[in-house]
Amino acid sequence: MSVGDFLLRRVAELGVRHLFGVPGDYNLWFLEQVERSDQVEFVGCCNELNAAYAADGAARITGVSALVTTYGVGELGAIAGVAGAYAERVPVVCIIGAPPLQAIEAHALLHHTLADGNFGNMLACHREFTVAQTRIVPANARCEIDRVLRSCWIEKRPVYLQLPSDVAALTIDVPDEPLDLAAPSSDPDQLALAILRIATRVTEARAPALLLDAEVGRFGLTEPVMGLIEAHSIPFATLPSAKALIDEAHELHLGTYRGAGSAPEARAAIEESDCLLCISVRLTDAATGIFSHRLRSEEIIHIRAFDVTIGMDNIPGVTGAEVLSGLVTAPPIRPRRILPPRAKPPKRLPPQFARPLTHKRFWQRMQDFVQAGDVVLADNGTCSAGTAGLRMPCGVTVVGQPLWAAIGYALPALLGTLLSAPRRRQLLFIGDGAFQMTAQELSTILRRGLKPIVFVINNDGYTIERLILGPDSSYNDINQWRYAEAASFFDTRDQAISYTVHTENELEDALVAAEHPGSLVLIELVMSRMDAPRSLVNFARRAAEFDFPQLSRVLVQPVPDRRGFQTRAVHEGDALQKEGPSSLGRTVSLRRIAH
Amino acid sequence: MSVGDFLLRRVAELGVRHLFGVPGDYNLWFLEQVERSDQVEFVGCCNELNAAYAADGAARITGVSALVTTYGVGELGAIAGVAGAYAERVPVVCIIGAPPLQAIEAHALLHHTLADGNFGNMLACHREFTVAQTRIVPANARCEIDRVLRSCWIEKRPVYLQLPSDVAALTIDVPDEPLDLAAPSSDPDQLALAILRIATRVTEARAPALLLDAEVGRFGLTEPVMGLIEAHSIPFATLPSAKALIDEAHELHLGTYRGAGSAPEARAAIEESDCLLCISVRLTDAATGIFSHRLRSEEIIHIRAFDVTIGMDNIPGVTGAEVLSGLVTAPPIRPRRILPPRAKPPKRLPPQFARPLTHKRFWQRMQDFVQAGDVVLADNGTCSAGTAGLRMPCGVTVVGQPLWAAIGYALPALLGTLLSAPRRRQLLFIGDGAFQMTAQELSTILRRGLKPIVFVINNDGYTIERLILGPDSSYNDINQWRYAEAASFFDTRDQAISYTVHTENELEDALVAAEHPGSLVLIELVMSRMDAPRSLVNFARRAAEFDFPQLSRVLVQPVPDRRGFQTRAVHEGDALQKEGPSSLGRTVSLRRIAH
Repeated sequence: MSVGDFLLRRVAELGVRHLFGVPGDYNLWFLEQVERSDQVEFVGCCNELNAAYAADGAARITGVSALVTTYGVGELGAIAGVAGAYAERVPVVCIIGAPPLQAIEAHALLHHTLADGNFGNMLACHREFTVAQTRIVPANARCEIDRVLRSCWIEKRPVYLQLPSDVAALTIDVPDEPLDLAAPSSDPDQLALAILRIATRVTEARAPALLLDAEVGRFGLTEPVMGLIEAHSIPFATLPSAKALIDEAHELHLGTYRGAGSAPEARAAIEESDCLLCISVRLTDAATGIFSHRLRSEEIIHIRAFDVTIGMDNIPGVTGAEVLSGLVTAPPIRPRRILPPRAKPPKRLPPQFARPLTHKRFWQRMQDFVQAGDVVLADNGTCSAGTAGLRMPCGVTVVGQPLWAAIGYALPALLGTLLSAPRRRQLLFIGDGAFQMTAQELSTILRRGLKPIVFVINNDGYTIERLILGPDSSYNDINQWRYAEAASFFDTRDQAISYTVHTENELEDALVAAEHPGSLVLIELVMSRMDAPRSLVNFARRAAEFDFPQLSRVLVQPVPDRRGFQTRAVHEGDALQKEGPSSLGRTVSLRRIAH
Repeated sequence: MSVGDFLLRRVAELGVRHLFGVPGDYNLWFLEQVERSDQVEFVGCCNELNAAYAADGAARITGVSALVTTYGVGELGAIAGVAGAYAERVPVVCIIGAPPLQAIEAHALLHHTLADGNFGNMLACHREFTVAQTRIVPANARCEIDRVLRSCWIEKRPVYLQLPSDVAALTIDVPDEPLDLAAPSSDPDQLALAILRIATRVTEARAPALLLDAEVGRFGLTEPVMGLIEAHSIPFATLPSAKALIDEAHELHLGTYRGAGSAPEARAAIEESDCLLCISVRLTDAATGIFSHRLRSEEIIHIRAFDVTIGMDNIPGVTGAEVLSGLVTAPPIRPRRILPPRAKPPKRLPPQFARPLTHKRFWQRMQDFVQAGDVVLADNGTCSAGTAGLRMPCGVTVVGQPLWAAIGYALPALLGTLLSAPRRRQLLFIGDGAFQMTAQELSTILRRGLKPIVFVINNDGYTIERLILGPDSSYNDINQWRYAEAASFFDTRDQAISYTVHTENELEDALVAAEHPGSLVLIELVMSRMDAPRSLVNFARRAAEFDFPQLSRVLVQPVPDRRGFQTRAVHEGDALQKEGPSSLGRTVSLRRIAH
């Protein structure tokens, strides 16, 4: 079997169905092999960064995906997306078509390199953002492909394989067995110890609680976590990064915990818990409202994919999956019935004719529009903040980048999620600045005849940055595009319906069309420059204090701790913040386009 | 003076007038400082890769430029462009707004990082593609800013400065003296030795010749090189990467040397020279028609920026500038008057009504269209090949990426060249696949009211890849866009004129409008899928043989040498190549849009 075909077989065994990427001379032979494959399909993207985002989006639905680029120019174009997948713990197999092996070994001066004979720099660069790397040569192909793909699967992070152009065609002996995807198992004694200690702590606790992060989903821990919650009636909260991971209507769901920005009940239950089980939790600035959490580290038990920490004691050699399963059936814990008080669902008010659309009213409306089973993609900024405020119906998947937070991520990611869940309705919320970053990938979505509903918020610039610093500074301005014409520019087949919406009743008209879409629907929402969900305004103020302590009269005094970073200062200067709507300073013509 | 203002002052002293980039929370304070600067202007781009390309384009005109991004997401988005600048030897100052210093030192878990407390990975990654790197802190700012900027200037390559968000505002003592930009000087004895040995070799030679590469321009060596050529009547050729560097009408100009693809006279003069002075030459695959050059290394004298190599002897400690200047006035060398035979300029044939446009005829037409003093940007592939075949009028600057060869480079680079040479006419030639990579930067060009002439070749996919492998394979296909509507989508002010051209007479109509443009002119050229300049077809065939030796019946036997890579095989299999025009397999509607 050829090396390229073997790699394809292994990638298919991993569960990959789509290879996102861009052709380049060094990967063409491998792409010919993909072309002949009946298991894996190539999805050509407009550029490599977009391809990386699409692969990331696909992996969040299917569990793993792959990216194909060419050496140097291609892989570096994608690396920001790969680093994002690493940060957010998304497994993406990066396959790089490299120059022919003999040229590498001769240090030849080639295009797509620095022409200095160095063929180690690209791999060195990717070592920072992948958990396993290799250059495939005929002698190591059989071992190395399996090693690297297994790392991707086990660690749920990107891996890097360089495939020299000539090596793809060479024949090697390959094993008959499928790729070994068995999860690592725990040391039995360590596992028993961990379960006993945690069970004891939970039993003795007055008010145990769970806090969940996104990796619960990545590592497939949702089921044992739910088992634990239900077996012992432990209330739980999710970090913003774990939005909609668990049914938000669950009777023990406290809501989202985000430090000072949490609802009071959720905040009290988590911060006052005397036994807080943190499942794969990373207390980042983004997840905690810029370190506004007040958790007592001695009361925290961290259960992670491959270890457990109880207070200051670390227990390695155990898997989170086995610890959680063990806890479900651990010696009976005193049953609890502390049902947290439930927040009332927001009431929907009727639309007001000709009233300019605001974030507040738009997201209220979206609360009814989002349906069970939807895939909801939210780009960073006003859109992620708006989405975070919704109570998601059962079975909704929320896709975003709460940690890496690269604007422009969500549109190409939508290509990946659409191909991976073709029967689910998919909604994208994206701001204008973000849309401009990666807009061309709408072309590939249209090329494939996919039919998402795309909301583009046209508020004339980088509103999240304006909220942090420079509300009227020119660097936060962008050019005005005819967003509603995007689908007719990026595709010639007139297969989309587009609206430009200024008012609430125009929004209603557009949503009627979007309710039963037989085509892609693009809705441009014209909103005021400084309008934003309240949670984002608060977050931005805290971010400004953190990034630019000189803004406050009292200087920020950071007190670093082991796992995060806490600030104690009170923000007293407010001169740079201008909240609330301001005029756009220009006229956006009312246009409504329907092909 | 604040650290940020001092950095701005130094960057201005270096000669930077535009900072290309994208705002992000960590760089906002610095951007506020830029906003208040009267020497340096911020140019916001749609995304970071485009900003890097724009900075690269600007530096090729003005000698140096700068890029501002935010930590992690921003800098990695730009790194492919920075690596390209490194490869092509273009000095770009990369300024990265980093998290506040105390958070870095506390290893805080921040957004835009991997949330693992590692703040060294971004710098490590950039170390591969920049010649100096630093994190600016108050204690080192005064020294480090100067050290890093000086490296950029001296080595003509990108440098990397991380500016923590809080550091930008802090006040430091700064020197009154401007930035020291003095070029390094030679060791006097080594310099005398180098000049003597080279002068002797030239004097004794039967047929000396010069071969020039792009770095002659980057290091400002054009004048001493011309002095040497004229003082001793030495004929010279330019590599494809040095296109139009020297007046192509010069009586001693042999034309372009590209190995086997050279005109016979140029090839003979270079390959049969018994004293070949190579000025800053890198014999890459791209410059030599995939190592088809046949040079005798013992006859070569390499004069580079900071050393000289005569045969096998290296002489360090000398600068190319001083060696060249010394040679101009070296003890009299026997004057020579070997004037090379001149190729006749191609004749222009009248347009043929309704004849579908071909590359051959289009580039013949462009020979007349290009004017003295134009800036000509050519993206890689059919466009760079077509441009390479033109005899450029005096004073034309050609901008492209012959070595790094990232498609999509030239459109954002055009933003940089337009802002840097606002009074020169600027032409962009770009293919559809390349255009789709970075198309949104047309928005910034329109936002600034700039007025280039943009030719987009719509030939339905990646033609350069089709010529290498997979002419009919789907991975080389792209979606059809309404290219002629680009300017009306990416901007709302209707300040462009657009044409879709299928035939020679339609091209003439469009060129009439473009001759005296008061607005941006965009001309979509619909061409056949497999049509391409002959030189590109030949190059692609050689690239296919090199990348995929299995294509040939006789396997390629590479013979590595010290500086490059040579192949000796004869390509005998041709099954995968389909040359000449083929039908597009679809109908492109004739549209002509003029606002």
